[in-house]
Amino acid sequence: MNVEHEFWRTPAAAPDAAWRERARARQDELTKPAGSLGRLEELAIFMAAAQGCDRPAVERVNIAVFVADHGIAAAGVSAFPQAVTVQMISNLAHGGAAISVLAKQLAADMEIINLGTAVAAPALVNVRDAVIAAGTASFLHGPAMTAAQYRQALAAGRDAAARAQAAGCQLFIGGEVGIANTTAAAAVACALLDEAPVRLAGPGTGLDRDGLQHKVDVLEQALAQHRDALVDADAILQYLGGFEIVALTGAYVHCAQQGLPVLIDGYISSIAALAAARLCAGADHWFLYGHNSAEPGHARVLATLAGRPLLDLDMRLGEGSGAATAVPLLRLACALHNDMATFAEAEIAGRCD
Amino acid sequence: MNVEHEFWRTPAAAPDAAWRERARARQDELTKPAGSLGRLEELAIFMAAAQGCDRPAVERVNIAVFVADHGIAAAGVSAFPQAVTVQMISNLAHGGAAISVLAKQLAADMEIINLGTAVAAPALVNVRDAVIAAGTASFLHGPAMTAAQYRQALAAGRDAAARAQAAGCQLFIGGEVGIANTTAAAAVACALLDEAPVRLAGPGTGLDRDGLQHKVDVLEQALAQHRDALVDADAILQYLGGFEIVALTGAYVHCAQQGLPVLIDGYISSIAALAAARLCAGADHWFLYGHNSAEPGHARVLATLAGRPLLDLDMRLGEGSGAATAVPLLRLACALHNDMATFAEAEIAGRCD
Repeated sequence: MNVEHEFWRTPAAAPDAAWRERARARQDELTKPAGSLGRLEELAIFMAAAQGCDRPAVERVNIAVFVADHGIAAAGVSAFPQAVTVQMISNLAHGGAAISVLAKQLAADMEIINLGTAVAAPALVNVRDAVIAAGTASFLHGPAMTAAQYRQALAAGRDAAARAQAAGCQLFIGGEVGIANTTAAAAVACALLDEAPVRLAGPGTGLDRDGLQHKVDVLEQALAQHRDALVDADAILQYLGGFEIVALTGAYVHCAQQGLPVLIDGYISSIAALAAARLCAGADHWFLYGHNSAEPGHARVLATLAGRPLLDLDMRLGEGSGAATAVPLLRLACALHNDMATFAEAEIAGRCD
Repeated sequence: MNVEHEFWRTPAAAPDAAWRERARARQDELTKPAGSLGRLEELAIFMAAAQGCDRPAVERVNIAVFVADHGIAAAGVSAFPQAVTVQMISNLAHGGAAISVLAKQLAADMEIINLGTAVAAPALVNVRDAVIAAGTASFLHGPAMTAAQYRQALAAGRDAAARAQAAGCQLFIGGEVGIANTTAAAAVACALLDEAPVRLAGPGTGLDRDGLQHKVDVLEQALAQHRDALVDADAILQYLGGFEIVALTGAYVHCAQQGLPVLIDGYISSIAALAAARLCAGADHWFLYGHNSAEPGHARVLATLAGRPLLDLDMRLGEGSGAATAVPLLRLACALHNDMATFAEAEIAGRCD
């Protein structure tokens, strides 16, 4: 690889500690018992430090949905046929997907980024063509992608993060769509965390017990086959990842490098976040976690990231839907921080002690 | 009491089962794996059944904040002086309180209802005068309120629920403000649940360990003193409650009678909800629970109500703030239910099996 182009190795600076302390001091002056807004206080303090200001805002939100197919789908690891991936591109573009509905409700900017599907997608005006190949190769037969494809996928994510920043967005959400992508994500997580597939694989879109056992078998076989190649996070993503998983990783890295906060979605997104933190020192200082996925391996991944999600609603859809659902919490947290009266302004007596 | 005026004994009808089933069927046709939106699906189904329609909505929200003082404050059970209650009325009216900020962000209708403070409140155009007395009496010395005051407080709540319904609101949130009201609420909960104060009393606005022990002692003394009088929920509320706690109870009862869903806030509101369910059969079929309060006794109360809150953000402010913070979840749930494409509409393949 050309070291000059390895943008993902540049560390991310930390959010500003002085602004964080100013925000914390303001929270203690607002007309409420100290700490009584709980995590809403933490969110406002985080955003103030991230934005380097006294009055943080999360009005402009970017949602980038990365779509790709996976060679491993041929191994029968999903409850849905691979044709669904390309059909979902149209559904996303026409506003019928969950994330489309959420983005509209939140008045968020939404990008649909096609990284390559098994069946070629029709040209749609609001779908960005970033096709790398007609899906990855099956990692049962070789690496999921070439080194060049890996760099291309990371760059697709970086470019989305750069567009979000250029547009003045204050929060980035990455989503993913791709039949069989919980299998690819689980493979990446097993390799990054040195965990057995049985601990990290789950039913995804709805496998039954036999289906899940087959998925675990496939993962064990793949991990054994590539063991010697999986020397670092780059190799793990290239051999076992998917285009949209790698693009998410690149996007998260570049958001952090730009100082743009990221609201991580569920299982797959958290695995991309873990990979981003491995590639880029300090990246995870810019991550918030939207929700606890119902996918069982999510908790293990979050524990490594010390991530504490905002919501726990048994969601397991992906697309960025769990993160999008948490956006109003950030907005309300900022409004409370900015607009509540202080004890002095309201002429309210303080504590007795 | 005059039985003819005991509106709170009229049972509440259940939400419509046929509409619930129609909504459930629609959820299974939307372009997502079945169940993958988790509790957002349940919320939409609940609202469809409550509203008796295919396309539920939570656009118009009413937030009624009931304010009152408590005689038990004289026993030194709060970290804040009693003067704060009336000062908070001005802060609520001027938009500086947390619930004021949240109501504005949600474009909710907000009412501030003054049931009586120790220091008389100034006349403010957007505060409703429903003063019963200058706070309750201390329940260490006798019943907190007379039977007539109890009926008056219930009616104040009923009237707020009736105004919300008449205004076309689709969701009711009750909030409360009143120094020492976690002590009154804990007393009510202990009596309703036959639990010891040590299990249900918490730090409220921020008592230290000694303060909490004193609060427990006060509660034990009061419960022992009134034991023979606490024969039913009416007596428990009259002897131990507060005007705003009883008003919340009356409001919740009448919302349920009218078929208006209620989003219950935290500790105090949940105790009022428990009382409402005791007074009015079926009332709790209309309750959703906004958040888990950081007040330790909340979980015990919720367990009795089989209530599973939407949020768990370490909030413990009251005012209706936890419920208000959960409103966007209901709105997003309805939008997803109403606006997502079905598999047929999007021409997407179903499951393989």
